[in-house]
Amino acid sequence: MDIPRFEQQMQFLLEIDKLKSVQRQNLLADGSRQENDTEHSWHLAMMVMVLSEYFPGMDILKAVKMTLIHDIVEIYAGDTFAYDEKGYEDKEEREMKAAEKIFGLLPGDQASEMHSLWREFEGMESQEAVCASIVDRLEPFTLNISTGGEMWKRNGVTPDKVLKRNRITFERGPSAFSEYIEKQLKMAEENGFFNTWDRN
Amino acid sequence: MDIPRFEQQMQFLLEIDKLKSVQRQNLLADGSRQENDTEHSWHLAMMVMVLSEYFPGMDILKAVKMTLIHDIVEIYAGDTFAYDEKGYEDKEEREMKAAEKIFGLLPGDQASEMHSLWREFEGMESQEAVCASIVDRLEPFTLNISTGGEMWKRNGVTPDKVLKRNRITFERGPSAFSEYIEKQLKMAEENGFFNTWDRN
Repeated sequence: MDIPRFEQQMQFLLEIDKLKSVQRQNLLADGSRQENDTEHSWHLAMMVMVLSEYFPGMDILKAVKMTLIHDIVEIYAGDTFAYDEKGYEDKEEREMKAAEKIFGLLPGDQASEMHSLWREFEGMESQEAVCASIVDRLEPFTLNISTGGEMWKRNGVTPDKVLKRNRITFERGPSAFSEYIEKQLKMAEENGFFNTWDRN
Repeated sequence: MDIPRFEQQMQFLLEIDKLKSVQRQNLLADGSRQENDTEHSWHLAMMVMVLSEYFPGMDILKAVKMTLIHDIVEIYAGDTFAYDEKGYEDKEEREMKAAEKIFGLLPGDQASEMHSLWREFEGMESQEAVCASIVDRLEPFTLNISTGGEMWKRNGVTPDKVLKRNRITFERGPSAFSEYIEKQLKMAEENGFFNTWDRN
């Protein structure tokens, strides 16, 4: 028997509650504990909302939707730490399968829309995907700065890795963003937020 | 000296990280712990995104923005439990002051926009505010159902109070929503999700 459309949508909306239990590597701004994927996604959506003026002509709703759903696949695929090279090897395959499973809970038309939005985000080509990707890096960067680089130190992350992680900001982002990161990174280095210095 | 616009926006975006530490009364769907305001806000935004078809002609971006910011005042005003009648007495005054303080961190034009969005949400008049208010009640309702009414039992909440809390859904919501709540509530009563029965 077919499940009524509204109930099918509600089943998806209940299943994604699990994203609240997927932990990320970075800490909250006050350093009290690690952040989870839904807190992170909310924060990115707020960043798009407040910073959209730097992306003139962008479809703001589309960019917001991307930030809200970009990590949902991690309910089944788990979080891969941004600086974990080994974890990135099979990340794509794990996440593709997870996307089919989780978005597949929705009615067909919405499953397709979500899957397509998520793939567009992953592709980092459209203006909306570039904006969402930039704030996806800016948010943990800001929180890491706020905690005095606690997680950078714990994981031996170096400034060059932070720059590499934020490459899209320097290559395709508005200058306000890249200048902000450069300024904060300089302050972080001067104040010992990193254990080592290995830019090469 | 004036703070550059981008840095002012980033200061606001860092300050709102505190919303991740504002606890709500309801539990997550798996009952493992209480939910916080940012998890709740993300979930509401997802509900608007998935259920917007039931609000034809609605400005979806506006409704999503409302869900994202609707609890931000609680950073300074604290969460008021939906069934705490005493807490509601000075809720409005506390939250007005908090709104001025938190939104005031933004550049003037954005502070006004946020304040206005938040007041519109609180007014529950526009279609977007009605939609945001309905999901603001539907989300904890769904989580309470999922945990077998754990927090309803702990706080002595009765079915009539749940109906009263969801009044806007019955008065102004699409029938799919009210039928869903009635059906779930009937199931909850039959399965002992409430300690007492006191509809009158």
